[in-house]
Amino acid sequence: MHPPLDVPLSSEVAREIKRAEKLFAGALTTEALSKKKLRDAETDLREQLLELQTRLRDADFNVLVLFAGVDGAGKGDLANLLSTWMDPRGIETRAYGALSDEEAERPRYWRYWRDLSEHGQIGVFLSAWYSQPLLDRVYGESSPEVLLSQVQAIRALERTLAEDGTLILKFWMHLGLEAQKQRLEKLEADPLSRWRVTRKDWEHWTMYDRFVRTGALLIEGTTAEAAPWHIVDGSDGRYRGLTVGRVIRDALENRLDEMDARRSTPVETADSGEPPTVPNATGRVVSVLSDLDLGRTLDRQGYRSELKRLQARLNRLHRLAREQGRSTILVFEGWDAGGKGGAIRRIVPALDMRDVRIISIAAPTDEENKHHYLWRFWRHLSRAGKVTIFDRSWYGRVLVERIEGFAAEQEWRRAYQEINEFEESLTEHGIILVKFWLHISQEEQDRRFQAREEVPYKRWKLTEEDWRNREQWKAYEDAVDDMVRLTNSPTAPWVLVEGNDKRFARVKVLQSVCDVLADALGVSETSDLEVRH
Amino acid sequence: MHPPLDVPLSSEVAREIKRAEKLFAGALTTEALSKKKLRDAETDLREQLLELQTRLRDADFNVLVLFAGVDGAGKGDLANLLSTWMDPRGIETRAYGALSDEEAERPRYWRYWRDLSEHGQIGVFLSAWYSQPLLDRVYGESSPEVLLSQVQAIRALERTLAEDGTLILKFWMHLGLEAQKQRLEKLEADPLSRWRVTRKDWEHWTMYDRFVRTGALLIEGTTAEAAPWHIVDGSDGRYRGLTVGRVIRDALENRLDEMDARRSTPVETADSGEPPTVPNATGRVVSVLSDLDLGRTLDRQGYRSELKRLQARLNRLHRLAREQGRSTILVFEGWDAGGKGGAIRRIVPALDMRDVRIISIAAPTDEENKHHYLWRFWRHLSRAGKVTIFDRSWYGRVLVERIEGFAAEQEWRRAYQEINEFEESLTEHGIILVKFWLHISQEEQDRRFQAREEVPYKRWKLTEEDWRNREQWKAYEDAVDDMVRLTNSPTAPWVLVEGNDKRFARVKVLQSVCDVLADALGVSETSDLEVRH
Repeated sequence: MHPPLDVPLSSEVAREIKRAEKLFAGALTTEALSKKKLRDAETDLREQLLELQTRLRDADFNVLVLFAGVDGAGKGDLANLLSTWMDPRGIETRAYGALSDEEAERPRYWRYWRDLSEHGQIGVFLSAWYSQPLLDRVYGESSPEVLLSQVQAIRALERTLAEDGTLILKFWMHLGLEAQKQRLEKLEADPLSRWRVTRKDWEHWTMYDRFVRTGALLIEGTTAEAAPWHIVDGSDGRYRGLTVGRVIRDALENRLDEMDARRSTPVETADSGEPPTVPNATGRVVSVLSDLDLGRTLDRQGYRSELKRLQARLNRLHRLAREQGRSTILVFEGWDAGGKGGAIRRIVPALDMRDVRIISIAAPTDEENKHHYLWRFWRHLSRAGKVTIFDRSWYGRVLVERIEGFAAEQEWRRAYQEINEFEESLTEHGIILVKFWLHISQEEQDRRFQAREEVPYKRWKLTEEDWRNREQWKAYEDAVDDMVRLTNSPTAPWVLVEGNDKRFARVKVLQSVCDVLADALGVSETSDLEVRH
Repeated sequence: MHPPLDVPLSSEVAREIKRAEKLFAGALTTEALSKKKLRDAETDLREQLLELQTRLRDADFNVLVLFAGVDGAGKGDLANLLSTWMDPRGIETRAYGALSDEEAERPRYWRYWRDLSEHGQIGVFLSAWYSQPLLDRVYGESSPEVLLSQVQAIRALERTLAEDGTLILKFWMHLGLEAQKQRLEKLEADPLSRWRVTRKDWEHWTMYDRFVRTGALLIEGTTAEAAPWHIVDGSDGRYRGLTVGRVIRDALENRLDEMDARRSTPVETADSGEPPTVPNATGRVVSVLSDLDLGRTLDRQGYRSELKRLQARLNRLHRLAREQGRSTILVFEGWDAGGKGGAIRRIVPALDMRDVRIISIAAPTDEENKHHYLWRFWRHLSRAGKVTIFDRSWYGRVLVERIEGFAAEQEWRRAYQEINEFEESLTEHGIILVKFWLHISQEEQDRRFQAREEVPYKRWKLTEEDWRNREQWKAYEDAVDDMVRLTNSPTAPWVLVEGNDKRFARVKVLQSVCDVLADALGVSETSDLEVRH
């Protein structure tokens, strides 16, 4: 099961160990205290933590405390201690074992996203997203390159959460290499305890060395200003609670004071620096949308036969995808009255509704508002082999939220990257993703609004908001331009649909879904005709 | 695998078949129409359904359409058809395969509760809770008695939903016994198709007979005014959509009209009959609470040693329960400042926080408000081997909601039964359930309110609501009395805790948790000392 141990040590490994030792030498310890003083210090700390927890309750951010490190270094004990010290109703501990089948069928981080705590709460995560990268590498089941990509993914996740306000505090529980060695040698030196030291112990100790080195790499790779590591001496049983508790106290107090200060000063923009650079569409002469030829049409005859052909093709591809356990996500964005609903209704008959969910995205619920804006989309990810159709989506962040000012400039500007990373975690998992923008001209929109007012059962579709959005046409054009340019990729393509002619639009949508599916499933247009029942 | 087929038919079975035939003879069909007229009828129906769906969108109830019956009778096709006819964004189809491990670790109906649609939506359920009872009985894996208890559980579920306003429409897709037989005989009579009829087909046809009989029993057992069955001839491929669609249209229209009418008439109580009889506490001389001796105390010395002993005992029992995959739910109710938080904090140190969740129940979120009030508790049920502590709970329905009038009298009166059934489904699944009422005197509450006002970090615990609740003391006493009398059972016991002395109360809570756990796990007080690590 284990790969060959690297004994004797190569010079490179020796260097790595040196670096790890240096890193862990800085492990936090607290000065030695008398029993009485220790108890007093704990009592003070607990009172402070309780008071801070009270203040946190009404704050609009959450706290994420993460314990990682060697097994047996006290991660679980610390989680229990914190729950005992604080009001346990405001603190949740999350540990992770083997993936449940529901978890295995979703992208890697789904199990963590669904566990993220609400604003005002403290979530204590044990190992969590650090466990797999560490174990895989230690057991030689992943290469340094894979570890690196895992580190990148972790950085992205933690940055995403931190930028949304999550206070992230990471503690690496360390047990010294030398301390461990000395302990074994001491046992061996004593005839009465020699029997307790087996070959296996030394083997583990050597593995342990790999743990420490890999741990050091992980720590170095995932250290960030907004997600710092604190290395704690795990052997330091009496003080480690005090040590960890004080770090939490100081960080939480700082943050809460900062929030209070911000609230009491006039609201400028509390930007911590330059907003991420986004090539802004303003001033551009030609936008991606203006390239579209809205004159394209399809006659009734052609429409009928294409519709029939493509729905049959989609049905076959859908069944093939289901067999392979590949899920599909279709995102529909577009102008009001752009024909999203109609396009979706032409897709639905080709699918088995047992495998389909249509998620209409409107204003977030209050529960959703207490989380990162992507949380509500993570929770809708399906099990394997399903089709999820989003009628509006996470792109609301860079469209309506940008334009109406529901999101601060910082927020929508960083959303492009967040979205790209989110979609990457979908496609990495094997999910097939296609995104549609249904484009129409302003004149066509007018005609459709008019028509809707005349049909009673379509009138509900027309709201005041539609008219207001109508006035923001130019702003939306710019936003769409940025969106398409910044979030288009081969694995998560945007399909811009010329929508003035409904027949043309619907066929183009169907055709695109089929093409992307066929491509992802590795079947050609002709061969997918032969997909078996 | 199959039990011996009952051929030749016994007279009892023959009678059952007769009844089934009679039942299914009434299968709904629509008059034969010309192709043109059929198309026109469909177009009309679709428009009507779309319009009703629009009205439904803002209504405060949901629609549950259930298709059950023989496989191959068109359940899936009908679900697909409905999604095509209506706005697919307002209709969700749910099919159920093998249990996922997450589902298997929760009570039977958990998978359905999590899928129930929100107000304004239509949920189409395929087979759902009818599948298991039907298959188990047909394959001889359950007795008639088990089938009966399953029928009772279904009736309870559907009644619970219907009383909350869910419009339930159930369709049993039938394929006639004779029709099927004739089809096989006809094939056999023709030399060119004889080869297509195998022994297996006839065997299935005989099984089919069991399907039909069991189906009839299920239908008869689960027919209710608020959850009626409509039997549809599944062989009637061209008309069954029209048939089903019209039933849905009529029922939905009736309900929406009824709601509109109710809204426009002055709100009396729209009770549909006598409220369920609840022995009312008013006028009683002795309530369950007045039996409690609030003078009971425990000295500091005894408290310390008992606390230590019981926490150690609880820790052992908790680990044993985890090993056995048994979950525990602890419910805490009580007067404001009654000591719920303190009692919980004395339990927490005995547990491994990796296995614990504490759910504080406050006002429901908007998402929760769009579902049955029990939905929010179903969603918090844990996987196997966990401990869930509810700080306030579903009993809010018969306490604060009853007293403040947030629930109508009908609603809180029927809640006792709903709660009993809910708790039964928990304990049936093997969940260990204990419920605590922390009782204090009014004078003690005064003292505690006072004390809270003096400690800064405890002040948040005291709200205006607390003072208002204070004035409702008598009303709460009556409500607690009803609650305890009506929801106490050996498997879901209430423990009334004399809470004036905090030490006494905390020890009693711990002791009770331990006793119930030990009893459920089948270990005696002495033997649970020997639980291994």
